[in-house]
Amino acid sequence: MAMPPSTHPRRLLPLFLGLFQGALLLFFALFVTYDEPSAQAEDTNLVADQVYSTFPFFQDIQVMLVVGLGLLLAFLPRYGFSALTHNFLLLNFSMQWALVLQGLLHHFHHGQIHLDLHKLLISEFAAVTVLISVGAILGRASPCQLLVMATCEIPIYLASEWVIVTCLSVLDVGGTITIHIFSCYFGLGVSKALFRATQQPLHPKETPTARSDLMSLVGTLILWVFWPSFVAVLCQPGDAQHRAILNTLLAMSASAITTVVASSLLERDGKLSPGHLQNGSLAGGVTIGVVADMAMPPVAALALGSLSAVVCVLGFRFLTPLLGRKLTLHDQCGIHNLHGLPGILGAAASVVAVLVASKDTSGSHPSQLSPVGGNASEVMEGQWGGRGAGWQALCQAAGLAVAVGASLLAGLLTGAALRLPCLARPPERLCFDDSLYFKIQDQAESPEPDSGAEEGALALKEQV
Amino acid sequence: MAMPPSTHPRRLLPLFLGLFQGALLLFFALFVTYDEPSAQAEDTNLVADQVYSTFPFFQDIQVMLVVGLGLLLAFLPRYGFSALTHNFLLLNFSMQWALVLQGLLHHFHHGQIHLDLHKLLISEFAAVTVLISVGAILGRASPCQLLVMATCEIPIYLASEWVIVTCLSVLDVGGTITIHIFSCYFGLGVSKALFRATQQPLHPKETPTARSDLMSLVGTLILWVFWPSFVAVLCQPGDAQHRAILNTLLAMSASAITTVVASSLLERDGKLSPGHLQNGSLAGGVTIGVVADMAMPPVAALALGSLSAVVCVLGFRFLTPLLGRKLTLHDQCGIHNLHGLPGILGAAASVVAVLVASKDTSGSHPSQLSPVGGNASEVMEGQWGGRGAGWQALCQAAGLAVAVGASLLAGLLTGAALRLPCLARPPERLCFDDSLYFKIQDQAESPEPDSGAEEGALALKEQV
Amino acid sequence: MAMPPSTHPRRLLPLFLGLFQGALLLFFALFVTYDEPSAQAEDTNLVADQVYSTFPFFQDIQVMLVVGLGLLLAFLPRYGFSALTHNFLLLNFSMQWALVLQGLLHHFHHGQIHLDLHKLLISEFAAVTVLISVGAILGRASPCQLLVMATCEIPIYLASEWVIVTCLSVLDVGGTITIHIFSCYFGLGVSKALFRATQQPLHPKETPTARSDLMSLVGTLILWVFWPSFVAVLCQPGDAQHRAILNTLLAMSASAITTVVASSLLERDGKLSPGHLQNGSLAGGVTIGVVADMAMPPVAALALGSLSAVVCVLGFRFLTPLLGRKLTLHDQCGIHNLHGLPGILGAAASVVAVLVASKDTSGSHPSQLSPVGGNASEVMEGQWGGRGAGWQALCQAAGLAVAVGASLLAGLLTGAALRLPCLARPPERLCFDDSLYFKIQDQAESPEPDSGAEEGALALKEQV
Repeated sequence: MAMPPSTHPRRLLPLFLGLFQGALLLFFALFVTYDEPSAQAEDTNLVADQVYSTFPFFQDIQVMLVVGLGLLLAFLPRYGFSALTHNFLLLNFSMQWALVLQGLLHHFHHGQIHLDLHKLLISEFAAVTVLISVGAILGRASPCQLLVMATCEIPIYLASEWVIVTCLSVLDVGGTITIHIFSCYFGLGVSKALFRATQQPLHPKETPTARSDLMSLVGTLILWVFWPSFVAVLCQPGDAQHRAILNTLLAMSASAITTVVASSLLERDGKLSPGHLQNGSLAGGVTIGVVADMAMPPVAALALGSLSAVVCVLGFRFLTPLLGRKLTLHDQCGIHNLHGLPGILGAAASVVAVLVASKDTSGSHPSQLSPVGGNASEVMEGQWGGRGAGWQALCQAAGLAVAVGASLLAGLLTGAALRLPCLARPPERLCFDDSLYFKIQDQAESPEPDSGAEEGALALKEQV
Repeated sequence: MAMPPSTHPRRLLPLFLGLFQGALLLFFALFVTYDEPSAQAEDTNLVADQVYSTFPFFQDIQVMLVVGLGLLLAFLPRYGFSALTHNFLLLNFSMQWALVLQGLLHHFHHGQIHLDLHKLLISEFAAVTVLISVGAILGRASPCQLLVMATCEIPIYLASEWVIVTCLSVLDVGGTITIHIFSCYFGLGVSKALFRATQQPLHPKETPTARSDLMSLVGTLILWVFWPSFVAVLCQPGDAQHRAILNTLLAMSASAITTVVASSLLERDGKLSPGHLQNGSLAGGVTIGVVADMAMPPVAALALGSLSAVVCVLGFRFLTPLLGRKLTLHDQCGIHNLHGLPGILGAAASVVAVLVASKDTSGSHPSQLSPVGGNASEVMEGQWGGRGAGWQALCQAAGLAVAVGASLLAGLLTGAALRLPCLARPPERLCFDDSLYFKIQDQAESPEPDSGAEEGALALKEQV
Repeated sequence: MAMPPSTHPRRLLPLFLGLFQGALLLFFALFVTYDEPSAQAEDTNLVADQVYSTFPFFQDIQVMLVVGLGLLLAFLPRYGFSALTHNFLLLNFSMQWALVLQGLLHHFHHGQIHLDLHKLLISEFAAVTVLISVGAILGRASPCQLLVMATCEIPIYLASEWVIVTCLSVLDVGGTITIHIFSCYFGLGVSKALFRATQQPLHPKETPTARSDLMSLVGTLILWVFWPSFVAVLCQPGDAQHRAILNTLLAMSASAITTVVASSLLERDGKLSPGHLQNGSLAGGVTIGVVADMAMPPVAALALGSLSAVVCVLGFRFLTPLLGRKLTLHDQCGIHNLHGLPGILGAAASVVAVLVASKDTSGSHPSQLSPVGGNASEVMEGQWGGRGAGWQALCQAAGLAVAVGASLLAGLLTGAALRLPCLARPPERLCFDDSLYFKIQDQAESPEPDSGAEEGALALKEQV
């Protein structure tokens, strides 16, 4: 009953994390400081205003990532505690790691990095990529594997984001291309390289129960409510931010309804699939991110929301099984349907939006249709930093290509690295079970009571 | 094992929703646009300030309606997924439908409807009426019936709200009369016409379990926390809003404690009833809405909170069984106790508050007791648009009468329409069960394990 | 089957609460009013700004206390409903009681108490002490005992807070000393005096299940997300508040990761303990409170967060069992590990921070290292109201001593009072069970199905 394959990596986890925390402390001690306090009352008011305008958005995003996403991933009936904890651990690890890398790369002025809420927010956005990618291999990877994955993904994300946003000047205020598409294909690459050609059989603990589906739906609803904050937090205050909030609200509302339509039509007996609802309702938020602050009529937001839900549900129904059969590509949470396909739809929409907006500006209502705001630091008023619309549209497409290409390649390499024996992927029969990593006493929720009792006895022996 | 009565409406649902989304897209394409972006920096600051002052309230209300209310309705142990999903679907459908109708009715300027966050908020308030009314027939109606009900209720609500607020100039900042009372009696009317004289027997799946009661209580607590945002969002910024927040906090705090007192005294063995706690704690928020921003001392808010909780608990204990026996009136969630009775109490309090305030203004402390703020667009300073206090008090009473009368009548007619066979109410033995509309795998939470297994076998056959 | 020992106190509860509500109404009617509405537009804007700057923080704190803390306490599998309800009831009762006492003690100007959001917030902070102290005796005390405990604790807290903050001018913006340390040792004192030398045996219903651990973790995550609002709400707007938010975020992030390291290293098989995660992740927030707005580099926040997590996990692993064996001290939720030890660490850190800051001010970067902000009303610019750093450091230590001493003594006396037979502590075999105080129908979550059925039968008989 001794479990040699899984005992060792349990020791690796604290070693790895402990060393990381030590290095972080050293880095902060040497390089990181706060802004000097402002001497004048006007500056104090300015800082206070910044806190009041950013902090509520920041808190909304924290709720989304820590509670909402954690619960959404808790659809595996015996793996809920692991899903929440691993999500929480990865968020913190990735945010700190992104803080270090961003500090080293971008903010090295006068030998000191000046920390503020905005920098923490940017690091949190980087961490989101890891949380999404994990969905492809949820339940079949050890915590050590997840941490190594995060360690690889963050620097590659930062590099890819720098190419896409800074070099190509891609407009992407809600992170559709830079975050959702990147993390989706990175996760799929990891999954492909990690599991290779072995088709993953349906595990008996993999099927959601009524209760775990309910928890997951609550997670979806929390994400759904706060998504506008995620999209709008980095917008220009004023009209652009107002418009981004409205567009996101419209898109997500259309997604919610269209998901019900699509799911009901696709299932033979007209019953709705919980998985469709949990994911399709959010697809609109993924799609709208890249165009949320652009000049487009409200109907476009509704249409994109509806379309993204259709694409997401179709993906679950047809594409995921197909990819599983043809490419032996395993996608546990269906991240390709929630982040990949709707993301590509959004990127395509941004190309059209840029082209249409440029045509309209030569028309009769110039002020209404000129690009309003946009990603603050990137866009000049009027013509995207003086570039033509065609060129900007090309850049949007190039950004999509970079995100897909870089993430797939890096994901495949990272997935190969995760096969290292010292990271000890759990054996199949112990997957999808909290009791492998946590001192969980009792698993009353077992679909088969007998196997639950067995498992309990086994866990008890293991602890003795 | 083929289920002809329930197969057909499952096809009707996507048809109905799909057509609605198509029509919505068309309507938005033709008529809806955003405000033109502001050209001047001052306007931009103004828009930004509006976003910062409204958006946090808006998000609080979204959490209430999507997560809080959804969980509160999840007290039926095998119907939690349906409660959350139907609540979510109806919110989105009703909000979009209200947006269309309000656009057509009120906001038709220059051939274009200018969408902003405030208009979305107003539509969301309209949608709340549907979510409340559903409580009367929860678990015994098909999704199609609920959608038809929403389709009927929204226009009637808008008309009734127009009469009450615009014609009668009723003061009702928190929607006590316009939303809570209206939706309660509409729901009861629907229930009466739908179930007619057949007394609903106690269904075996209707009894809450410890777990479903816990989820429902979490929903109550979320509603309790964010209720002040619901009441205060439409107040005049400044003193009136501050006062509305404080009054709501006091009333809800008093409700919470008084509910425990009342429930404990009414039960023979002194044990508290979960249903009382889940509803009574919120009664103060319903009552206070209509007077929250009026000139009254803090003790009035406390007293109204306490009184409303007593009324709510008494309603559950005595009135609901009585109405069931005498009028064969079925009220699944007890909306009459949470929204009806406390609402009427609030309306009565508003009559008194108006009369008392007018007397006090002729006294020694004029500034303190004059009506502060009030429903912004309706009330001039001092004397309710120049009208006397007696007249205003009469209007408050008339508003209550209109809300009750219109909603009951419209509810009865709507309920009769819901009897259409094509909307196929589920047969009694399949009520209160998620597996009728959702591909839910496993119902571990069954009170009787055997019937659960049977049900599972049946569901399995049905899917095959 | 009649239960004489527990029937009587069930009658005492409504009596006690009812009398309290009556007295509260009388007190409010006589003494409490709102501020007079502002006559000028400028004042209105000022009030509006105050609402917008305080209310979002206030709502965050309400979510923490009502939902987050309630769920955290729901780790007892059959006691979740009681934990949530008692937490909710005590919050409201204590807040109202604190409002009365503070009104009487501090705010008696011109015969009238002027209520505003800030006073409600201060009362809510007082109520937090009760919610924390309860953790020591959770599950083994009757609601009446808890209410009597709250009745005693609030005035003692207010006195202790007055000595610490007003007399000793201790800097403690996040309530580490005044709230966390005070409430911890008060709770331990109560537990010691209530249970005396009898060692509490492990109760069969005391062991968390997978499901109750999951709910509790969700509570932890909600607390974790909103903790920065709790620490920063009373800070000076501007730099000090910004810094307090950042320090709290850093400390809590470090706590989360270090908890995993420590828990993994301490358990023999490397599995993580849910209890460690649920508490250790929050330890950083307790520790950082007292120094959050002080002048210290970001690395200090990280180090304190890590250290507090280590201290918390070590406490769970070694100190709690030791105290149980040697002192027969019972600490159900481990409040000494979450609030006591990390609090003392924070207090010690504040002594160091004060001394270091004073040394640095004589160095080369005066503006950066001078104390920024601090507890608004207490601190003059520069040198803590003209006092030297050594003196201020001494005061911090004295504040710690006062908090520990006063709370322990008062807790012991209160605990002795709770032994009054009329408060009827539940007999051991009925502890940790919702069905003792609530009409809960079904306890499907029983670890031993048979005992669950028995209990059900018993409860049924009892009701008949």
